[in-house]
Amino acid sequence: MTALPSKGFAFRTIATDGNARRSVLTTPHGDVDLPTFMPVGTQGSVKTLTPTEVASTGARIVLGNTYHLWLRPGAELIAEFGGLHKFTRWPHAMLTDSGGFQAFSLSGPMPTSRGRQAEATEKAPARSLVKATEEGFSFRSFLDGSKRHLSPEEAVRVQGLIGADIQMQLDVCPPGDSPRDIVEAAVARTTRWAARALATPRPVGQALFGIVQGGCFADLRKMHADELAALEPRFDGLALGGFSVGEPIEKMYETLAEVAHYVDPARPRYLMGVGTPFDLLEGVEHGVDMFDCVLPTRNARNGQALTRFGRVIVKQARYKDDRLPIDPECSCECCTGGYSRAYLRHLYLAGEILVLRLISLHNLHFYGELMKQSRDAIERGEFHVFKRAAVDRMRRGEP
Amino acid sequence: MTALPSKGFAFRTIATDGNARRSVLTTPHGDVDLPTFMPVGTQGSVKTLTPTEVASTGARIVLGNTYHLWLRPGAELIAEFGGLHKFTRWPHAMLTDSGGFQAFSLSGPMPTSRGRQAEATEKAPARSLVKATEEGFSFRSFLDGSKRHLSPEEAVRVQGLIGADIQMQLDVCPPGDSPRDIVEAAVARTTRWAARALATPRPVGQALFGIVQGGCFADLRKMHADELAALEPRFDGLALGGFSVGEPIEKMYETLAEVAHYVDPARPRYLMGVGTPFDLLEGVEHGVDMFDCVLPTRNARNGQALTRFGRVIVKQARYKDDRLPIDPECSCECCTGGYSRAYLRHLYLAGEILVLRLISLHNLHFYGELMKQSRDAIERGEFHVFKRAAVDRMRRGEP
Repeated sequence: MTALPSKGFAFRTIATDGNARRSVLTTPHGDVDLPTFMPVGTQGSVKTLTPTEVASTGARIVLGNTYHLWLRPGAELIAEFGGLHKFTRWPHAMLTDSGGFQAFSLSGPMPTSRGRQAEATEKAPARSLVKATEEGFSFRSFLDGSKRHLSPEEAVRVQGLIGADIQMQLDVCPPGDSPRDIVEAAVARTTRWAARALATPRPVGQALFGIVQGGCFADLRKMHADELAALEPRFDGLALGGFSVGEPIEKMYETLAEVAHYVDPARPRYLMGVGTPFDLLEGVEHGVDMFDCVLPTRNARNGQALTRFGRVIVKQARYKDDRLPIDPECSCECCTGGYSRAYLRHLYLAGEILVLRLISLHNLHFYGELMKQSRDAIERGEFHVFKRAAVDRMRRGEP
Repeated sequence: MTALPSKGFAFRTIATDGNARRSVLTTPHGDVDLPTFMPVGTQGSVKTLTPTEVASTGARIVLGNTYHLWLRPGAELIAEFGGLHKFTRWPHAMLTDSGGFQAFSLSGPMPTSRGRQAEATEKAPARSLVKATEEGFSFRSFLDGSKRHLSPEEAVRVQGLIGADIQMQLDVCPPGDSPRDIVEAAVARTTRWAARALATPRPVGQALFGIVQGGCFADLRKMHADELAALEPRFDGLALGGFSVGEPIEKMYETLAEVAHYVDPARPRYLMGVGTPFDLLEGVEHGVDMFDCVLPTRNARNGQALTRFGRVIVKQARYKDDRLPIDPECSCECCTGGYSRAYLRHLYLAGEILVLRLISLHNLHFYGELMKQSRDAIERGEFHVFKRAAVDRMRRGEP
């Protein structure tokens, strides 16, 4: 067990298998078994589910979006209630992003992202100009048009009020197809912002993670990882940002293969906004410890269940009289509760909220199981075998 | 314990207090303590909730809407799955309406109703012409425009396929402000349709209830109650239809006071589509055993919580930093789970589905408790005291 710089945090790696590793992150709200997937609770709720249900999927850490919570209900109100844990009744660990990605992407044009998003709100936010300077981001609230300024220091202050266990530094995240000079500038500014974030006082009991940028330029990534790892006071963990922002998936996989294991092994590594079940297995293989993505919950609300054998799109006519649950071998409440695909299809076509709940629960449970099986496989030294079988099964589709 | 005509059904009254009565209805899916409130599951789901959650509110019987289920997913499909219990995973008793009210009200102009409705579907159904003749109703499906015909016999056949424990006869329900001659004609046709429904074979283990019409003409109501009670083969229960369809509330209360206790005491009495917490207490006082209404679940989705001390409209600014649960003395999951009004307000303003679930659960729990307390008060011979105190508390508002 190695203590991390912030009080109440520690990190230890129990087992490795190639670059994959099985670790434990200790936080003031309990231990988190790594690798892990963090469900996204953009507005203080993992959409459609209660905290008890989210925990039942195996999740022991969730992500909140600082941008949304800052604008509504407001960081001060959350602080008044003793922080986001108490406000939302989530008893386990929490992480907040810095708000920069949303301030930027909700206010201006961004390339299509597969995962690095907040969970959509009912109303699409109005796009407005965002100004990015050395000082930070200036933008207007999508709710009331009020002017907001997000600097590295302000991101720490706001996240301090929200009170998650883990804060993220404000970073600069260029689109996935940016040329090298743009990416270099983003890396350099992110490092300067990292130093400013680390120099900003934050409440005791909150950790701070740095964010490695560099796009798909592996040399930039490694250089940046070294830079951030060397900063004092030290970051508690290091994230890989700027993936799944429009670059080809193969490029992401190639870069991850070169870079992820290179990031300081003494601290947790977090791959931001990623991804599909395939992405998670790929990330684990290369040494990633933490993931987050809206995909399992957003796809659920579009009627897409994710399973061991690929996607089950419940509205399809083929399920009209299908008596099977989504996955007969799954142990989630949806699959063990006797809800047939035919019934779920009916509920989806009829616009019933219950089906969004049931599939959200199933999808997060599937992600939770995938991570648990990955941890077990690493401990057995069989992660590669497990990964190949899991990928094949998902690709083959339903037997 | 008196056996009712249909196999597997029995009815006994344990205690009376004035006209109020405390009874038990035995069904093939268990005993139901009366008086009781039946949550509405229009499309095979009590909106936003799982069957387990619905049962946790004390409900032991729910209502399904034949009109909706017939059109989607189809009565035959439900039958293929072994009936609505198995299709929806509700293990307790179920009742279906005849589909006539929806066929009529969703297809033509109807006066504002406070309660006698199906739970709204996401899309408002297109209104089309409905033709009412002695044979039955002809209308077009609001889903695909297909021609449908609903006769007393067809209503029994379709409900037979859906497979609830209790069927309702097809009836004629005139608007609440109809003149006497219209109401008389509705009563006469409803009696002829009652005889046709009773003469139609239905599956063993399904009961059939008749529906007393007569608007707010107490003499017509009593005459009709006698007529339907005398029919052979006998109905298993008798309902009061045609209330809460636009008439002034005082007229409904007056008529109920004269009529409800008059309906054959040897069979369960069901007041259809009613109502508010006040309406329920009024109905119980006059001898009603069963109620159904969309109000608790529909209001929940509009952010209105119903409590011992009246309504809590969660979006109101007064709750912005309110740390209390909806009702500190309520034992539902929402109120004991530590969810503050401030958090619920935030979720509601943010468009989060979780709040619709939590308030739906709370409201049905409140209705369940109100019925349980009524039953206890009747057993103690103190229903009038209980009712007065409950009404006063709701009227006074929050202390």
